[in-house]
Amino acid sequence: MTTPVDIESIRTARDVITGVAKHTPAVSSLTLSENVSGNIVLKAESLQRTGSFKIRGAMNKVFSLGNAATRGVTTGSAGNHGQALAFAAKHFGVPCEIIVPVGAPITKIEACRAFGASVIEHGAALKEAVAFSKSRAAEHGTTFCSPFDDPAVIAGQGTLGLELVDDLDELAMLVVPLGGGGLAAGTAIAVKTLLPNVRVIGVQAAVCAPYCGAQVPDGPVLTLADGIAVKYPGKITGPLVEMWVDEIVTVDENAIADAMVFLMGASKLYVEGAGAVGVAALLSGAVTPSQHGVTCLVLSGGNVDLGVVPGLIRRHENDAGRRLAISARIDDRPGALAKLLAVFAEGGADLIEVHHVREGLDLQVRETGIHATFEVRSKEQSKRLVAVARAAGYELEVGSS
Amino acid sequence: MTTPVDIESIRTARDVITGVAKHTPAVSSLTLSENVSGNIVLKAESLQRTGSFKIRGAMNKVFSLGNAATRGVTTGSAGNHGQALAFAAKHFGVPCEIIVPVGAPITKIEACRAFGASVIEHGAALKEAVAFSKSRAAEHGTTFCSPFDDPAVIAGQGTLGLELVDDLDELAMLVVPLGGGGLAAGTAIAVKTLLPNVRVIGVQAAVCAPYCGAQVPDGPVLTLADGIAVKYPGKITGPLVEMWVDEIVTVDENAIADAMVFLMGASKLYVEGAGAVGVAALLSGAVTPSQHGVTCLVLSGGNVDLGVVPGLIRRHENDAGRRLAISARIDDRPGALAKLLAVFAEGGADLIEVHHVREGLDLQVRETGIHATFEVRSKEQSKRLVAVARAAGYELEVGSS
Repeated sequence: MTTPVDIESIRTARDVITGVAKHTPAVSSLTLSENVSGNIVLKAESLQRTGSFKIRGAMNKVFSLGNAATRGVTTGSAGNHGQALAFAAKHFGVPCEIIVPVGAPITKIEACRAFGASVIEHGAALKEAVAFSKSRAAEHGTTFCSPFDDPAVIAGQGTLGLELVDDLDELAMLVVPLGGGGLAAGTAIAVKTLLPNVRVIGVQAAVCAPYCGAQVPDGPVLTLADGIAVKYPGKITGPLVEMWVDEIVTVDENAIADAMVFLMGASKLYVEGAGAVGVAALLSGAVTPSQHGVTCLVLSGGNVDLGVVPGLIRRHENDAGRRLAISARIDDRPGALAKLLAVFAEGGADLIEVHHVREGLDLQVRETGIHATFEVRSKEQSKRLVAVARAAGYELEVGSS
Repeated sequence: MTTPVDIESIRTARDVITGVAKHTPAVSSLTLSENVSGNIVLKAESLQRTGSFKIRGAMNKVFSLGNAATRGVTTGSAGNHGQALAFAAKHFGVPCEIIVPVGAPITKIEACRAFGASVIEHGAALKEAVAFSKSRAAEHGTTFCSPFDDPAVIAGQGTLGLELVDDLDELAMLVVPLGGGGLAAGTAIAVKTLLPNVRVIGVQAAVCAPYCGAQVPDGPVLTLADGIAVKYPGKITGPLVEMWVDEIVTVDENAIADAMVFLMGASKLYVEGAGAVGVAALLSGAVTPSQHGVTCLVLSGGNVDLGVVPGLIRRHENDAGRRLAISARIDDRPGALAKLLAVFAEGGADLIEVHHVREGLDLQVRETGIHATFEVRSKEQSKRLVAVARAAGYELEVGSS
């Protein structure tokens, strides 16, 4: 049986993308290596042009169309593939139409438009946008470009694997996000054809893990890793993943959130949820790194809405004991709140938020309820502060705001 | 006159740090290049081991001490230099003591301890910590290591310049953060000795810009770029900066905040304020990029407290029109708030926060005040929503919460 993608088609794709897509850096992570006892290298594909690996496949796809591309290309996408196709179309000077679901993030629409694509909002979910894109393609003679289920796209994504083989000595294990399967299949084919002993592990988000045979939800999937929330294996990628990927694991949303914050704090990289699943798999123990040679995690993209980040950081700071929330009753007299707050200020806690609460509590006459949140340095400091306040006569509850 | 640092001492330093400090990637930025009309490359030194360039100088300094290092090294630092010295001491197997001001961020103390340094909290500000470190060094026969005013440190930082000369074709302009002057002097010496036509521009934070002859504040300096908030030019770095740096510019705090968010959103890099001043200088117009060849911005470090980030993003989203804050009066009847919120929900706005306000407002009997904040897609959407709500009979004020 001939495979639709092989090392030769991936090498050809490399010639197509060279000088346009970046050869992204592979950076070692000392902190992660020590945390999980391995030799961990991060493939920072989040620094790729258009913010994700998708440009590799899109460039190769539009190139492979040759003259057929001149009528134009189209796809249904609210994310990385849409931006990448818009970029590739602009590069080759062909028209591009991207169909996004109604209400898609304005930043992503703007990114496609910045590359000269026309963007149409249609349908409530991605499925409808894709169907509309296909019918527009049929109607106008343009080419519908799948985000993953296409040999030219898979070969393009495989170029990332060639870079790893070139850049890394002693590559032993490759951990790669698994959504539609284009990236996982392409890189696995590239790496394992050249280095058959490398173990390739695909990582899916637990809430949408069809490659593990898991039941997928009917409606929209809510996950931080929306870039890999694909409900069905591709007709082409499915068998390739089956053939080339050694193991598939899943990670839950908390692990993905932890991984995103870890990458910001320790590795100084801003990585989207789908790109962080490899780190999540290591930190959560779903994957044990190779005990000889390098374990490489592919950080596949960095296109995360800035608005998501504050919530992730707040959650992390709570977990790390950097927040102290208290409820207290104080006398309803001038100066009572100032006195309570002074106790915490003297102990080095920074006040973030405070509310007077008078409704719905079992308060005595001339009493007021207080909810206050402080920034603190550690759980130990919180304990000390609460002990001091209680010793000073305040009735406190901790963690209830 | 012989200079205390030259290309030979920098080349020797490179031999010392090779294999320990990373050769960090230089990545082109299409978005920035288009924004400011230049060919912009970012030297992502934020991905350096220990999170900043300081490891280069610290490694070279401890190595250059030879046997004298065995008694131990010390410094006063609350930041990158302390972590770098702790790392270098661990690498060479010598004791290390870091003096930090009382109340220094726990994350930075933990980072030093993780490299095996003993950390002592002493003094209200960095000045006292440094003085105490010097007196401890004199008392115990250890070596005090300056963060910048030392030829071995300057030569170490200069290795970053050698990497730029190796990696970049057609380097025409180098924009580098300027604090104590070790990085600016070292890289300028390396680059301009080999490529005399490169223009080197140093960037200081406007609130602390002694190299521009500006008056510096007496007390602690509050700036996002705390890594370069050094009040006096060094005895050694001062004349070197004078001799080798072509121009010095300043950037204000808003420009630094904008640059940090730009780097996250567009470049997917998590960079500290001091590391983002080059981008701030370009985006604010303080520096015009070279019109021929490459303009390289040194992103000198990535050690920013995660807690700072939510505020930066919130500010950015307000500026970008992604928030709508309203104040309204509604009837004090069941369902009145639900009805008002429905108007905004139907228009696609996501409610973030809502408060009932009954005190201190000029309310009629049976009226309630509402402050509500929504996440929206654009300023245009905000205008439409407010117009619809007013047409439905609500008295609204915008932007007052």
